[in-house]
Amino acid sequence: MNRPFDEELRDMRKTLLHMAAQVEESIVLSVRSLKERREDLAREVLRNEDLINRFDLDVDEIGMRLLALRQPMAADLRFITSAMKIASDLERIGDLAVNIVEQSLVLITSPPLKPLIDIPEMARLAQGMVKDALHAFVDKDEALARAVCERDDAVDHLNEQVFRELLTYMMGDRDTIPRAMGLLLVSRQLERMADHATNIAEDVIYMVSGRIIKHRSDQESKEPVS
Amino acid sequence: MNRPFDEELRDMRKTLLHMAAQVEESIVLSVRSLKERREDLAREVLRNEDLINRFDLDVDEIGMRLLALRQPMAADLRFITSAMKIASDLERIGDLAVNIVEQSLVLITSPPLKPLIDIPEMARLAQGMVKDALHAFVDKDEALARAVCERDDAVDHLNEQVFRELLTYMMGDRDTIPRAMGLLLVSRQLERMADHATNIAEDVIYMVSGRIIKHRSDQESKEPVS
Repeated sequence: MNRPFDEELRDMRKTLLHMAAQVEESIVLSVRSLKERREDLAREVLRNEDLINRFDLDVDEIGMRLLALRQPMAADLRFITSAMKIASDLERIGDLAVNIVEQSLVLITSPPLKPLIDIPEMARLAQGMVKDALHAFVDKDEALARAVCERDDAVDHLNEQVFRELLTYMMGDRDTIPRAMGLLLVSRQLERMADHATNIAEDVIYMVSGRIIKHRSDQESKEPVS
Repeated sequence: MNRPFDEELRDMRKTLLHMAAQVEESIVLSVRSLKERREDLAREVLRNEDLINRFDLDVDEIGMRLLALRQPMAADLRFITSAMKIASDLERIGDLAVNIVEQSLVLITSPPLKPLIDIPEMARLAQGMVKDALHAFVDKDEALARAVCERDDAVDHLNEQVFRELLTYMMGDRDTIPRAMGLLLVSRQLERMADHATNIAEDVIYMVSGRIIKHRSDQESKEPVS
């Protein structure tokens, strides 16, 4: 334990940023594997998962060590506990990307049901939310974190739109039901990713301001229906 | 800060147990509201949510205060961080119960699609897993925590069974699609509850043994597809 405390905090931040980059890649690749019907990209997401899980364990380990040995106060304490929570949300986003590719691997064996527009857009939005939430974390930028929270509505809206559209397909032609169900699952994983990105942004707000905003602004449930 | 540290830890444990009891009640009531077609029970779950959220904030607040002011070591540190994680999983289970009653409030306005057997059984299993995971936490009972993790498979299995059965309804009669979709959503919320209960049991194992088992035993993703 001879290293300066600041250096250890910097290591923790770096690990979290590597983890976030890997998670962002998984979000993008999971939906590209579906849109471009590429099994190789799906396999890459499955391989990424191990890496993401290892990053999660690393962040937890660094955090527990710092809590035990450095006995940090106030701002540093909030930084460490926030980083641990953020890692846990990132890990879940990685799991959701795995869920998407599991659907993708099935869906690409049948002819496409429809051109995909909203689902790639949802992936783009979710990825942007993760990216900006982490920027907000690094820069301690409360305003950016709040902006991320607000973007959750756009993803929810797209998810509802996808749901209604696919329900119409299913009602019109029962042969579309299995594929439509697959796409519905994909859409919901993306909605849940945006929800986890929102959790991260809420953790950043807490870290920066000391104010807990979860359970405050949101009348709607934080766990999306899926 | 004149109170003995042990007393504060006891307070934290008690708060968590109250929270768990409230969450268990929400699980049971959410599915009873659907099975018995009772709007009043659904409303009670919605009211419970505020209470559950308040407990979550309380546990977090106690935890952060103890971390900052008591600078706990080893076992106490693991107890505190585990309690904070458990509260977060319990809170999400509460959110999932809210998702269920949102479906229930819609479903009970149409004639029942089928008698509900598997869904109430899933609720019973999920509630039992939460109860035992918390018992394991209080008694520091690693064997019980491991047994909880193993019960997750039974819930997953029921969820797949419900999925296949409802898909058959949908394929056979398109008029059943909206109701079948509602029941599918309910089934998946229950599967996710069992998943969160498993997370809690994993936290207990970590607390008791210092060993992290997440990302180890489970090849399958920890976030259920939904």
